[in-house]
Amino acid sequence: MNRRMILNTVGKMVFAEGLFLLLPTAVSLIYRESCIFAFLITVAVALGSGALMIWISKPRSPIIYAKEGFFIVSASWILLSLVGAIPFVLSGEIPSYVDAVFETVSGFTTTGASILTDVEAMSRGLLFWRSFTHWIGGMGILVFVMAVLPNVSERSIHILRAEVPGPTVGKLVPRIKDTAKILYLIYVAMTVVQIILLLCGGMPAYDSILHAFGTAGTGGFGVRADSLASYSPYLQWVITVFMLLFGINFNVYYLLLIRRFKSALKSTELWVYLGIVALATGLIACNIFPQYQSLSETVRHSAFQVSSIITTTGFSTADFDLWPAFSKAILLILMFIGACAGSTGGGIKVSRLVLTAKQIRREIQKMLHPRSIKTLRFEGRSVEEQTLTGVSSYLGIYLICFVAIFLIISLEPFGLESNFSAVAACFNNIGPGFGAVGPTASFAGYSDLSKIVLSAAMLLGRLEIFPLIIFFSPSSWRK
Amino acid sequence: MNRRMILNTVGKMVFAEGLFLLLPTAVSLIYRESCIFAFLITVAVALGSGALMIWISKPRSPIIYAKEGFFIVSASWILLSLVGAIPFVLSGEIPSYVDAVFETVSGFTTTGASILTDVEAMSRGLLFWRSFTHWIGGMGILVFVMAVLPNVSERSIHILRAEVPGPTVGKLVPRIKDTAKILYLIYVAMTVVQIILLLCGGMPAYDSILHAFGTAGTGGFGVRADSLASYSPYLQWVITVFMLLFGINFNVYYLLLIRRFKSALKSTELWVYLGIVALATGLIACNIFPQYQSLSETVRHSAFQVSSIITTTGFSTADFDLWPAFSKAILLILMFIGACAGSTGGGIKVSRLVLTAKQIRREIQKMLHPRSIKTLRFEGRSVEEQTLTGVSSYLGIYLICFVAIFLIISLEPFGLESNFSAVAACFNNIGPGFGAVGPTASFAGYSDLSKIVLSAAMLLGRLEIFPLIIFFSPSSWRK
Repeated sequence: MNRRMILNTVGKMVFAEGLFLLLPTAVSLIYRESCIFAFLITVAVALGSGALMIWISKPRSPIIYAKEGFFIVSASWILLSLVGAIPFVLSGEIPSYVDAVFETVSGFTTTGASILTDVEAMSRGLLFWRSFTHWIGGMGILVFVMAVLPNVSERSIHILRAEVPGPTVGKLVPRIKDTAKILYLIYVAMTVVQIILLLCGGMPAYDSILHAFGTAGTGGFGVRADSLASYSPYLQWVITVFMLLFGINFNVYYLLLIRRFKSALKSTELWVYLGIVALATGLIACNIFPQYQSLSETVRHSAFQVSSIITTTGFSTADFDLWPAFSKAILLILMFIGACAGSTGGGIKVSRLVLTAKQIRREIQKMLHPRSIKTLRFEGRSVEEQTLTGVSSYLGIYLICFVAIFLIISLEPFGLESNFSAVAACFNNIGPGFGAVGPTASFAGYSDLSKIVLSAAMLLGRLEIFPLIIFFSPSSWRK
Repeated sequence: MNRRMILNTVGKMVFAEGLFLLLPTAVSLIYRESCIFAFLITVAVALGSGALMIWISKPRSPIIYAKEGFFIVSASWILLSLVGAIPFVLSGEIPSYVDAVFETVSGFTTTGASILTDVEAMSRGLLFWRSFTHWIGGMGILVFVMAVLPNVSERSIHILRAEVPGPTVGKLVPRIKDTAKILYLIYVAMTVVQIILLLCGGMPAYDSILHAFGTAGTGGFGVRADSLASYSPYLQWVITVFMLLFGINFNVYYLLLIRRFKSALKSTELWVYLGIVALATGLIACNIFPQYQSLSETVRHSAFQVSSIITTTGFSTADFDLWPAFSKAILLILMFIGACAGSTGGGIKVSRLVLTAKQIRREIQKMLHPRSIKTLRFEGRSVEEQTLTGVSSYLGIYLICFVAIFLIISLEPFGLESNFSAVAACFNNIGPGFGAVGPTASFAGYSDLSKIVLSAAMLLGRLEIFPLIIFFSPSSWRK
């Protein structure tokens, strides 16, 4: 195992986090808030320890394998969360370190689950950092570092594979560094467009930027206690559309960018995803219509909540915990489906479900005609058997992790519905659930043990389980 | 498609049901109950229509393929339920035909979910028939018919495969007819032993026979409103042990029978199953200890409920709906795990979970060492890739069906917890769930639509989904 290379890369991540932290530092300077000292200390810690790690581990060889990729990704994400939590504690705004780590993990993993009971009392600098972590975590900080660093080895595809969600991760262009750059450019451009559209609707600049961070990363942290309920219908629609856009595989945007419109619009995953959104919005709208004044209001709330949940963002414009059981059941199912692979969204991912459905169809044909041999096709390519076993193994370990986490959380004195949805909301990187963790409530009522377990659940969900399991299994550490 | 052979075999099943119905007819004669007329009419209907079907469809060729097997199994189970429901309606004791079908499907599929609100008011003849359907459905009526009919074609392995649950179904002995005979002999012998042990504990003969039927089929219908709560600790322990025994793969008993003790005790599935039972019993006992008087009472209730749920029987000695969330979460998980393959129990089956776990471990190894090739071993044999895809396809379609059924049931005015557990309890052939369908409640409050959907869920669960999907897909009917 190339330990030097692992330490070196993780050091670069921590150093990068120190640079990222300069932005909220500047914000707290603008608003003349006392939390600036907390930020300055954390910047010093991050830059210092990052530089130290890079300095002591000058790698002798740049070669890394899959295992190194998993180690780098796991260690980076854990360390970034532990360091990113420091400003909350130093400023005294979130006194408990466990709470602060929960909030930071929730940020980086783009979950948006919060332990804050009064978000509007927070300083603007810290709120900015909280939302900024969404934006950093959405596309992946390692992808970012790959995009900006010189001399990126082609070997880093292992890092890309471990950090970018989905059953298959490919390079858009031959060079890995260019792929990372293109992804980030699309990401930045779309964020900027959204900020402009929000500003046009009269949203204050600070709110616009933070909500764009939350949307782009499909995170869900906002600036108000009622999330987006008190903003205008125009603003709610803008965010609905952008949540959906950030839930689409970025390959589609790349294809649009290079003017291969036909290929872009042929994506099966895209149409299944949009089909599910349309169907769910329609069904919920019919179901909740009696609770609202007009059809347009009904459709707006239905579309917003559906988009927010399936993309695993977690913003809300209505307290969907008060909706009828049928609508809540649909939302619960959407929580697990999740967004498209290669987007910033979480969950199981639409492409995995499409592949599973295709596999089931083939299985039925095999039962009827045992000697037939058929390869599956998806997105215009034939699917390797290896990808299919990967998908089914992922579903298996997904269920096992879910059950294990749910069991520990069940020690809490809340009901089955609250606990189940709390695990679903964290593991799928959504944010709010039902009941005790509904959109108007918070995770503050959970014990420290549960907060730590749920933080682990968020990381497992964001990194798609395997990297962390490999990182924490003792056999991986043996030489 | 060999339509004549299908109709012919289904006719034999209906005829066999007519003969089975003579037993409850005799019971109602003994107790001089008026429901005897309902039975006599149904016997006439079953024998008559069965004979007619056999007569008009004299098969020209005995050859059947997998598709015929699926058709025979699906059509038989549906028809047997529709006919078996007649006595309940004719006697006036369950006036609604939908309710009667629900109760009969629940019986044959060994679910044990009931729409009865006052079970003790039912006549003894009908209660006998209700429990007898468990016993018939447990081992499979087609297996029974294969065991008794002369000239059974070796082709009937397709029927055996479609009716007996589990990822791999093998013949115990070279001839299929002998395999069916051995299975039924073990089944009858164990039932008789249980009846004797219950009689020794002072349970009345009628109750002993019915409870043995419910245990052997892992069904769950009883004779009292409080299920088994009012029987002595000895009787509760006898039933605990026999529920567990009927949840074990019958291959194990066959191996014991032919004195291959070592092979029998080497079964991985057996030990995983017993391990889960022991662990769950221990955890729940710790959790519910404060609610009971003594340690022995705590362990008895814990072991009984754990055995009842994991084997998907559904008897109860305590209202587990009042237990803490942690215990309920464990029971909810056990609902899905289910018993061993090749037993009379339902659920996903322990062997599928073991195979999935092994597949995940191999997947992790492949991630770290992409070029390694490893075949999986299970129960002393190497597992074919075909079996693994079969398992993962089953998990996939299992989840899809579960979600679809849950969505329809969510239209009911009950909470998420009640509806979710109602679907889990029917689909996994257990019986009681939580809340509105808890062990002291019934399914009477659900609408006719839901009852039909839940009846379908029970059949899907018992026949392991694929046969019914193939039977109902229009493409299977095309020539």
